[in-house]
Amino acid sequence: MSLLVVGSVALDSLETPFGQKEDVLGGSATYFSTSASFFTPVQVVAVVGEDFPEGHLTFLKSRGIDLEGLTREPGRTFRWRGRYGWELNEAQTLDTQLNVFQSFSPKLPEAYRDTPYVFLGNIHPELQAQVLDQVKAPKLVAADTMNFWIKGSRAALLKTLERVNLLFVNDAEARQLSGEHNVVKAARAILGMGPSRVVIKRGEYGALLFDHDHIFACPAFPLSEVFDPTGAGDTFAGGFMGTLATARGAVDQPLLRRAMVMGSVMASFTVEKFSLERLREVQRPEIHARFAEFRRLTHFDDLGPIEA
Amino acid sequence: MSLLVVGSVALDSLETPFGQKEDVLGGSATYFSTSASFFTPVQVVAVVGEDFPEGHLTFLKSRGIDLEGLTREPGRTFRWRGRYGWELNEAQTLDTQLNVFQSFSPKLPEAYRDTPYVFLGNIHPELQAQVLDQVKAPKLVAADTMNFWIKGSRAALLKTLERVNLLFVNDAEARQLSGEHNVVKAARAILGMGPSRVVIKRGEYGALLFDHDHIFACPAFPLSEVFDPTGAGDTFAGGFMGTLATARGAVDQPLLRRAMVMGSVMASFTVEKFSLERLREVQRPEIHARFAEFRRLTHFDDLGPIEA
Repeated sequence: MSLLVVGSVALDSLETPFGQKEDVLGGSATYFSTSASFFTPVQVVAVVGEDFPEGHLTFLKSRGIDLEGLTREPGRTFRWRGRYGWELNEAQTLDTQLNVFQSFSPKLPEAYRDTPYVFLGNIHPELQAQVLDQVKAPKLVAADTMNFWIKGSRAALLKTLERVNLLFVNDAEARQLSGEHNVVKAARAILGMGPSRVVIKRGEYGALLFDHDHIFACPAFPLSEVFDPTGAGDTFAGGFMGTLATARGAVDQPLLRRAMVMGSVMASFTVEKFSLERLREVQRPEIHARFAEFRRLTHFDDLGPIEA
Repeated sequence: MSLLVVGSVALDSLETPFGQKEDVLGGSATYFSTSASFFTPVQVVAVVGEDFPEGHLTFLKSRGIDLEGLTREPGRTFRWRGRYGWELNEAQTLDTQLNVFQSFSPKLPEAYRDTPYVFLGNIHPELQAQVLDQVKAPKLVAADTMNFWIKGSRAALLKTLERVNLLFVNDAEARQLSGEHNVVKAARAILGMGPSRVVIKRGEYGALLFDHDHIFACPAFPLSEVFDPTGAGDTFAGGFMGTLATARGAVDQPLLRRAMVMGSVMASFTVEKFSLERLREVQRPEIHARFAEFRRLTHFDDLGPIEA
């Protein structure tokens, strides 16, 4: 089934211990849609400027991604500049230029309004709500957010969250949103705000999925080389939502868990190279092989008899 | 089969956000042996002072722990004072008084020398080597260490490591020992120093087991209340080594993985109350139930068919 994403399509400039890149392809909707496109048809709502290279759009189309909802407006494309230290865990934002994103008001093409799976990328919670106003009867609405909105637009965010089924946040955001330091308490508090499921992303330590009855812990894939963590969270969400959207039946625990692992699989590829370089080249057999590696990484037998 | 531990038996004073405790039972050998005693017979090599309460020894004996190798010397018992902030991840050491531990020279009773499983708690690497000089043909030797020895007694530590089969370290120690920031590279570097297996403990994020062919990732149990992380690492090692020592056959991957999970199970109990309070009261059915919860926490199905 089809999957709608609203978010940024951007040009990123990155400084990492391994090198520097200027104006490479980036943006939450870009990483998300590319990752999800391995599993399901994806529709993008976003905006780019006059300077956005046509080649990037050609690439997204080559992945089967529907760009009817992506508009090109006068002005420059959204730009983000960030730096990573050796920790490679959190980016230091050096510069953000909203450009055409400043006046972005998401408009859904008619063909998008029946889409059953919706992902609201990390944009102003009022814009996220505008998207929800335009979809008819989504089966599942997921959202991402960040410290900037949690602090600066809390009321709007809480209002949007009432309409969200599943929230993706990192642990710092979960703490900030809930006011709880302990991650289990933070997750439970968020489950009282609207979402019936929350995914807490912990970077190199993996991710936790909470609902009212279960917790699922998924490690990150242990990589000996991490080049560029940019987009890892959106790639995770893309693999996760893409997997959900393949379901014929209910969104149940076995499916959600496969989605968590597939999110981790896709994110583990993204960070292996700069920008979307690794996602561009990855093949479905590699994805399946890494999923199998996650089972070998995590599975253990039932407890045998223990003698006292 | 029996399991030998050398380490500290101490009196700890703790400051946490939840309260303060003076001169409570602590020490690496104490946590380790109590934890391991649920699985296998344990022998302790350690020293206490004249002030060490007899009641603590009575408790350890009640767990079936062999204290023939624990001597009482003139002077005061080893004391540690630490403080935890809300993060509850790493203790700030406020004071360490070696006392009778200063002149500790481990002597193994004759009955200990045939012990097949040996755990060298976090003491000077030369003392760890002295213990190895006294055991005849151990089946498996595991060790713990810390930043103090990695920095201050590196040559002695590297010499001891050549005789160690399995090393327990936290991620900061792994980085310091190996000079590698990336945890996978750090583990591989340590696997070149002698141990054929290394366990990297990551506190609330769980633990990783590396050997030359496999990686196993085990999460920490998601607890909504953590009162006192003191002894979590030694409790983990006790559950781990206790599980190994129950084995009739080879120390293989399935067994090592069960040991990792059982270490995590036991550590998750320890941190729920101060000192050894939780380990004192925990019952075997609770241990088995939490092991089963770890399976529910981590397991997922094979990948179903994915449609493009």
